[in-house]
Amino acid sequence: MPHTFFQTDFTHDPAAECWVSGAQGHATFPVQNLPLGIFSVGDGPRRAGMAIGDHVLDVPAVAPLLGEDAQAAARLADAPTLNALAAAGPHPMRALRCAVFNLLTNEPNRPDVEPHLYPAADCTLHVPFAVGDYTDFYTGIHHATNIGSLFRPDNPLLPNYKYVPIGYHGRSSSIRVSPTQVKRPSGQTKAPDADAPAFGPSKRLDYELEMAIWIGEGNALGEPIPVGEAECHIAGISILNDWSARDIQAWEYQPLGPFLAKNFHSTVSPWVVTLDALAPFRVAQPARPEGDPAPMDYLAHDVSAAAFGITMEVYISTSRMREAGDEPHRLSSGPMSAMYWTAAQLVAHHSVGGCNMQAGDLLGTGTLTSGEAGGEGSLIELSQGGKAPITLPNGETRTFLEDGDEVIMTAFAEREGFARIGLGECRATIVG
Amino acid sequence: MPHTFFQTDFTHDPAAECWVSGAQGHATFPVQNLPLGIFSVGDGPRRAGMAIGDHVLDVPAVAPLLGEDAQAAARLADAPTLNALAAAGPHPMRALRCAVFNLLTNEPNRPDVEPHLYPAADCTLHVPFAVGDYTDFYTGIHHATNIGSLFRPDNPLLPNYKYVPIGYHGRSSSIRVSPTQVKRPSGQTKAPDADAPAFGPSKRLDYELEMAIWIGEGNALGEPIPVGEAECHIAGISILNDWSARDIQAWEYQPLGPFLAKNFHSTVSPWVVTLDALAPFRVAQPARPEGDPAPMDYLAHDVSAAAFGITMEVYISTSRMREAGDEPHRLSSGPMSAMYWTAAQLVAHHSVGGCNMQAGDLLGTGTLTSGEAGGEGSLIELSQGGKAPITLPNGETRTFLEDGDEVIMTAFAEREGFARIGLGECRATIVG
Repeated sequence: MPHTFFQTDFTHDPAAECWVSGAQGHATFPVQNLPLGIFSVGDGPRRAGMAIGDHVLDVPAVAPLLGEDAQAAARLADAPTLNALAAAGPHPMRALRCAVFNLLTNEPNRPDVEPHLYPAADCTLHVPFAVGDYTDFYTGIHHATNIGSLFRPDNPLLPNYKYVPIGYHGRSSSIRVSPTQVKRPSGQTKAPDADAPAFGPSKRLDYELEMAIWIGEGNALGEPIPVGEAECHIAGISILNDWSARDIQAWEYQPLGPFLAKNFHSTVSPWVVTLDALAPFRVAQPARPEGDPAPMDYLAHDVSAAAFGITMEVYISTSRMREAGDEPHRLSSGPMSAMYWTAAQLVAHHSVGGCNMQAGDLLGTGTLTSGEAGGEGSLIELSQGGKAPITLPNGETRTFLEDGDEVIMTAFAEREGFARIGLGECRATIVG
Repeated sequence: MPHTFFQTDFTHDPAAECWVSGAQGHATFPVQNLPLGIFSVGDGPRRAGMAIGDHVLDVPAVAPLLGEDAQAAARLADAPTLNALAAAGPHPMRALRCAVFNLLTNEPNRPDVEPHLYPAADCTLHVPFAVGDYTDFYTGIHHATNIGSLFRPDNPLLPNYKYVPIGYHGRSSSIRVSPTQVKRPSGQTKAPDADAPAFGPSKRLDYELEMAIWIGEGNALGEPIPVGEAECHIAGISILNDWSARDIQAWEYQPLGPFLAKNFHSTVSPWVVTLDALAPFRVAQPARPEGDPAPMDYLAHDVSAAAFGITMEVYISTSRMREAGDEPHRLSSGPMSAMYWTAAQLVAHHSVGGCNMQAGDLLGTGTLTSGEAGGEGSLIELSQGGKAPITLPNGETRTFLEDGDEVIMTAFAEREGFARIGLGECRATIVG
């Protein structure tokens, strides 16, 4: 049972006191979180860091202060990506997180550690992994139903949906880290009443609110990962914005799926939150609606704590809002548990035919829409396919994204008796 | 006009004499070819080699014998992949090929060069590039029509086909080099008359006869490659077998395209034949059938020499055939010019929305079926969807591949007045 591998322990003690300035009670990166990322300062080398409050800890630099296992992990972290550390599986990452927790909660370590803490504002964050392959799933059943209704009104949810964790391969090369700019793509589009397609900038540019699941230890080609072991192959999670040009997609996607509609850019948040940090926030996978088929054997596992109690939010900030000093406006909010399939099921399915997963592979959950009003994970849902513009507090309206719009995604986990931990932000601005 | 960049020159002289034992008049790797690959000998390092006859030339080892530009290229080739060399664009690769041609056609160089020639039988060949992203196109219009008829009898060729070079993202991690074994994948399949899917080994395992187009110099995110410059971003071509589990594909592919049906394995041939070597074999892109739309502006280019006069063949060798000492049996043969879109159009389309291409990216042409009997690029076409088994010379029949079947693909270019050059082989055996 993998979730018994990920148990609440001393690192989740809400009373733990952290000596790092400003970190105590930090709403996103308290000492109970300690997510990993890749950072650099000035012209310095890229290496692994851990977010703590408003600082970044230089992980390789504190290696000499750590015990044997954690020190070995910190040395793997002395690299421009997290791939080598993640490839070593969950034990080194756990040893590292536990050891750093001890460093940062024991005041006597302060003189040795403090020189290796950098203000986050002085750090440049990078894509945390060299992404070998990026796969985007489609686990948000409410999103799949909503989108299906727009593309195939007669047939929104296809017959395979409740048997197959539907996914497709995405583009690795265009993954960028938050904060960034996204250039509006051009491509072929065809109006329903036009005889032929036209070429030009996408007029239906949209975001997709997803979570990113990062693969840690991989598998050999031809040797599937059993669903019961799958979580031990997950290095952690981030936030993912899978930008989509809906008009390009509608014209190109048959019969082989989305291509240029997606591959111009995907944005990830910089911090990888481990399943260890998320242990207190595990929840049961929501029960399947009555009448739905049970998962097939290779996907069947104990789901009593297989989902994550994470709240995801999307905000928009238009050029006009920023000029007026307005706060970003929240467009939607919903739970990560809107996934019809668990993270473990995605890993098991992906590898069941023999496909080899590698450290740094990125699995997107697919757009997560809650199924309740205010929980739509994309503008195409909020605006009902562009037919019902939404109105922002300053009177501006949107069906799809305009140049200058900044999209900000956040995610966090909260539970009574535990410190709140955050995933940070995934933020990008559209440019023409 | 990129094909004016790729002109016939002294390296195509059919009368050139090569001093390498057995290379003169070699049907695949004469001195007029000089394809690049990655090889190793014993426990030695991986580095770039050039195929010459039945030998492999150690390219970095002869660097000191070359002129300045070629020497710089040979030093980039001192690496476990061709990525760095290819990323430098077409000029260094051209300088290298010309310089090696001179080395191997001037007898006085023999004492200095011969120690760096290895019998091909003593070499291990590797995947020539670290493949960042793999994209499979669908340019074989006869294949698309044949397959479309099986999956969508009422609607074989979708309305976008003649406007959009249809493609989708594939899986990089499972690309392997010939010769290799392919493990039969298991997955969900659903019989048309079944209420629910079943799980088990694919019963409709197939090959797909394709060409691999390797990207050389890439482009920055957001900066498309114009079609007129696209060929200068191609490092060369190989043979590609895009294995397909037709039964898994039929159940999973809607709405986001093929996934597990393809990602268990793709096999490439080891040698990368440059567009320089192929200069004499350029042919006009076949005229579009009357009534077809013209390519849109961003895809419009001079196609008078934009296709390649390459013949592709597929052979099968079953376990029983090998036990009996029978020669492999040719299943089909057809031209690479069965592509509805040119290689340049594929590169331009892929990047037109801003997607960044990187050295080592692999573009598959899609299955190339000639449109004439005997030119089918897959078993699903040869066996008419499995309804019409084919009979082999020894009396065995096949609809799809059986365990133990070896599939051998070859490709070559021939033209009166020029040396025949080959792509080599893409060879793999199915294991259960």
